[in-house]
Amino acid sequence: MRIDQALPALEWLRGYSRESLINDGLAALVVTIMLIPQSLAYALLAGLPAEMGLYASILPLIAYALFGSSRTLSVGPVAVASLMTASAVGAVASQGVVDYASAATLLALLGGLMLIAMGLLKFGFVSHFLSHPVVSGFITASAIIIALGQLGPLLGIGLKGATLPSLVHDLYTRLAEAHGLTFAVGAGSVAFLLLARYRLHDWLTGIGLGGRTAELLVRSAPVLVMAVLIPLSAVANFQSAGVPLVGQIPSGLPAFSTPNISWPLIQELALPAFLIALIGFIESVSVGKTLGAKRRQRLDPDQELIGLGAANTAAAFSGGFPVTGGFSRSVVNFEAGADTQMASVLAALGIGLAAIFLTPMLYFLPKAVLAATIMVAVISLIDFDTITLARRYRTADFSAVVITIAITLLAGVEIGVLAGVGASVGLHLYHTSRPHFAVVGQLADTEHYRNVERHSVVTDPHILSMRIDESLYFANAAYLEEMVFAQVALREHLAHVVLMCPAVNAIDLSALEALKEINNGLIESGVKLHLSEVKGPVMDALQRSDFLSHLSGEVFLSHHGAVTALRAKGTADPAQT
Amino acid sequence: MRIDQALPALEWLRGYSRESLINDGLAALVVTIMLIPQSLAYALLAGLPAEMGLYASILPLIAYALFGSSRTLSVGPVAVASLMTASAVGAVASQGVVDYASAATLLALLGGLMLIAMGLLKFGFVSHFLSHPVVSGFITASAIIIALGQLGPLLGIGLKGATLPSLVHDLYTRLAEAHGLTFAVGAGSVAFLLLARYRLHDWLTGIGLGGRTAELLVRSAPVLVMAVLIPLSAVANFQSAGVPLVGQIPSGLPAFSTPNISWPLIQELALPAFLIALIGFIESVSVGKTLGAKRRQRLDPDQELIGLGAANTAAAFSGGFPVTGGFSRSVVNFEAGADTQMASVLAALGIGLAAIFLTPMLYFLPKAVLAATIMVAVISLIDFDTITLARRYRTADFSAVVITIAITLLAGVEIGVLAGVGASVGLHLYHTSRPHFAVVGQLADTEHYRNVERHSVVTDPHILSMRIDESLYFANAAYLEEMVFAQVALREHLAHVVLMCPAVNAIDLSALEALKEINNGLIESGVKLHLSEVKGPVMDALQRSDFLSHLSGEVFLSHHGAVTALRAKGTADPAQT
Repeated sequence: MRIDQALPALEWLRGYSRESLINDGLAALVVTIMLIPQSLAYALLAGLPAEMGLYASILPLIAYALFGSSRTLSVGPVAVASLMTASAVGAVASQGVVDYASAATLLALLGGLMLIAMGLLKFGFVSHFLSHPVVSGFITASAIIIALGQLGPLLGIGLKGATLPSLVHDLYTRLAEAHGLTFAVGAGSVAFLLLARYRLHDWLTGIGLGGRTAELLVRSAPVLVMAVLIPLSAVANFQSAGVPLVGQIPSGLPAFSTPNISWPLIQELALPAFLIALIGFIESVSVGKTLGAKRRQRLDPDQELIGLGAANTAAAFSGGFPVTGGFSRSVVNFEAGADTQMASVLAALGIGLAAIFLTPMLYFLPKAVLAATIMVAVISLIDFDTITLARRYRTADFSAVVITIAITLLAGVEIGVLAGVGASVGLHLYHTSRPHFAVVGQLADTEHYRNVERHSVVTDPHILSMRIDESLYFANAAYLEEMVFAQVALREHLAHVVLMCPAVNAIDLSALEALKEINNGLIESGVKLHLSEVKGPVMDALQRSDFLSHLSGEVFLSHHGAVTALRAKGTADPAQT
Repeated sequence: MRIDQALPALEWLRGYSRESLINDGLAALVVTIMLIPQSLAYALLAGLPAEMGLYASILPLIAYALFGSSRTLSVGPVAVASLMTASAVGAVASQGVVDYASAATLLALLGGLMLIAMGLLKFGFVSHFLSHPVVSGFITASAIIIALGQLGPLLGIGLKGATLPSLVHDLYTRLAEAHGLTFAVGAGSVAFLLLARYRLHDWLTGIGLGGRTAELLVRSAPVLVMAVLIPLSAVANFQSAGVPLVGQIPSGLPAFSTPNISWPLIQELALPAFLIALIGFIESVSVGKTLGAKRRQRLDPDQELIGLGAANTAAAFSGGFPVTGGFSRSVVNFEAGADTQMASVLAALGIGLAAIFLTPMLYFLPKAVLAATIMVAVISLIDFDTITLARRYRTADFSAVVITIAITLLAGVEIGVLAGVGASVGLHLYHTSRPHFAVVGQLADTEHYRNVERHSVVTDPHILSMRIDESLYFANAAYLEEMVFAQVALREHLAHVVLMCPAVNAIDLSALEALKEINNGLIESGVKLHLSEVKGPVMDALQRSDFLSHLSGEVFLSHHGAVTALRAKGTADPAQT
């Protein structure tokens, strides 16, 4: 049983049918065709040699197939992780300590090991701290930066910037250097790809093709562009016309290699590696869940961590760079009919064959074509819906998404995602820093107590009953203190304050200190503090502190019991005379 | 009225009595005597010339007297802020960009302006994010670092370290260089000060002195040490014996000066300035509240921000460094009978006179005496009580205090306090990431629904009723999703899930996405999702989203209403056949 849990692949490998093989083989073919341009393009986006994209699409696919829990997720290089890789690797490589490729490989290794560790420790919950507005805003901003950055290769100029202002500045100063033919190739490719995406499907079904066949043809548009432009580039000698080409790519499979490991480099790359891994994991799980739900297949987040961790570790040992489950390729894989991860194994085989036999042909491929592929791909990542929804729905969510987008655009991907998390957490704490509370009174002739502002209830001038509707912790402790004293100040003949705690699930140490302050403050005003309806675990904790021995009043099981008892001794209390 | 609010001093200045003047004058005398050695010592602790300590105890006191809201708080240099200043200033000064003094002055200016801005914006709540365990742990660790660091001047050796490991390493390697006479002076002072603190009071009251007089004599022990050792040092020629002395201090009042402002320096110092200001504010408010409560004087946190901001800005323009309300000096001021902030104004006058007339005498003061003063003062900051209480009380609080202490000791003050805040917030989110929920059933013959695990209740095989006991937000949204599907998987004949939401005060966008996923997932299983007892504001927000139009079921006002309606149409539902 234990090996079954560790290797989810065993489940589908057992009793693997010929029918599944046919389905998986077909899907693998389609995915391979789609992956070739994507892999090359994302490697260039990450600032790496094109072949690293192919390498990142072989062994990692097999590793995920063995350890991942989704049947149809397709892993490999993706746009956002490649941008983040470029940012992290650029920062260390510019210091001259290490070359780009080694840094990218180390980044994959670190991310992979972190993911595996998180999976083994069942730490998947860490990803919950990235709220939906932060993830959505971050991806939108990354897509904008990527799309703008691709204007560089599309125009045949170099753009160094990794933020909106620096990209705009670079574009503005270097626009005059734009290369006409390069731009014609790039813009032509963009136009064709856009047409293919938004029109081709309707046109193909219009001439009688099946919806699924049409869809798959649409998805292979990037390969079609390559198939036209590679021969054209060779024949028309684009190279001598000055069009930047992909050029020489080493043929063959990646060699097994150990990443260069150095402690200072690890320190520099640890945070970006963690962020890349986490964002990749969140995206992956989101895709995997969506696809899994359609076939009633459950996704296990902790196993996903291990699967993606294995994929990244495999990337690191075979000359690749950070990978994760991609949205578009997984959808293609699913729609092309993949039954199991055998499709990914076969796709890896396909990419391997491409790395051996196709690389000479790629020599003539203009880089602008790959830039066009990326640009059109990332447009779909821009998520205006969430922005619109957040604006209508809740100010805090809208603020979180706007802050994340703005800071990612202005300060880059790492600071952007960290600022987003900070804003998200900060806004949440701010919102819970004012606990709901209500002054309550007795509903006549019942044992129920309700908000005095909403119900017509009976109150006693000597007793203040306050119901606290939230757990008490550091961010709302000071507010509680203020509120109690403000309410006490309004009542002249007060002798007792009863805090009704049926909704208080926890009281942390800071809140305990605040309760002590309230107790001491009330003692000096001659008022006693009581608690009622304290939950079991909270009471246990209070008993472990010295609070109850200093409490001027009592702890009552029911609020009605408290009020009845205090009313009974009411006039006997000297504080009321 | 507006000027009254801006200048709290007007309140006590109006009708200021002769009796108050006598009380304040006496308190000022005692505080001045106490402040002289403290000011000098904390300036040296901050790595600054001794006279800056005096300068930081003149104008800032007057500024706080005008703008602060506490009647008895005494501001000036304090131990923890001085250590933080040393750390921040050391980091920039070691780069050679600027000298220590200019950086310290700029630190005071930045902190002062930040405090004023926070006060005007009513942003005092930011300080609530520093939980009690974090503040307590941070101060304990700082006190340990300060005490260890003072072993340097006490032994006559230089210690550069600002963390526990580096201090221990420095001590170990340089112990052989210790200077005998310096150590004798230092250790003697420490022994006398400890005796004074723990024995002198009993002894003085034993010989018939009043408790308060005894207390004040105890507090002036540091000045007594100075009064003995300055002449001794001069006569016995400590200087030629190699004992490090305070040496030449410029006589006179500080000149009005503008801090050196440069943008890169501001960027470097902004974070430490913010942390120093925030920690100082928290300490100040805590002292101010304690003293205020004894005389029923209310402290206004937002006004305190402005008062402390004014004090720091004044420090910056008169050659000082970051100041805040000190615990020991405020207690002394209070116990010496200060009525109003006039006591601080008079103490400022006293320090001003000292700066003019006493500085020549300070030439002969051994630095080891000041080190002894600091050591004995910071011992009382070590707060074992909170550690013990936290350990008994709650694991999360204990973890927060231990993490804060450990990281402050190992990595220094700035990283320490940031790690503490991170740990505190992270632990809180982790605790609320699993919302309380309960499967509920009907209490026979009532309209009440209770937890099926605790009560004997009636349930329907077609209906799953779940009560959610917490607000839904990003950190617990994924858990809710898991729980609902786990419960649904247990029930074969299910047709309806009703989420009962009387305790859900908010649903953020991430939780809304989770609800959509739950809705979609249930639709695919042929189960309808309903909500009941949704609070008004939550319902308003849901109506602004498109969730309700996609919801497969309905929203019911009461849970009983939901169950009754669903039971009625029960068998008519095709999903149940």
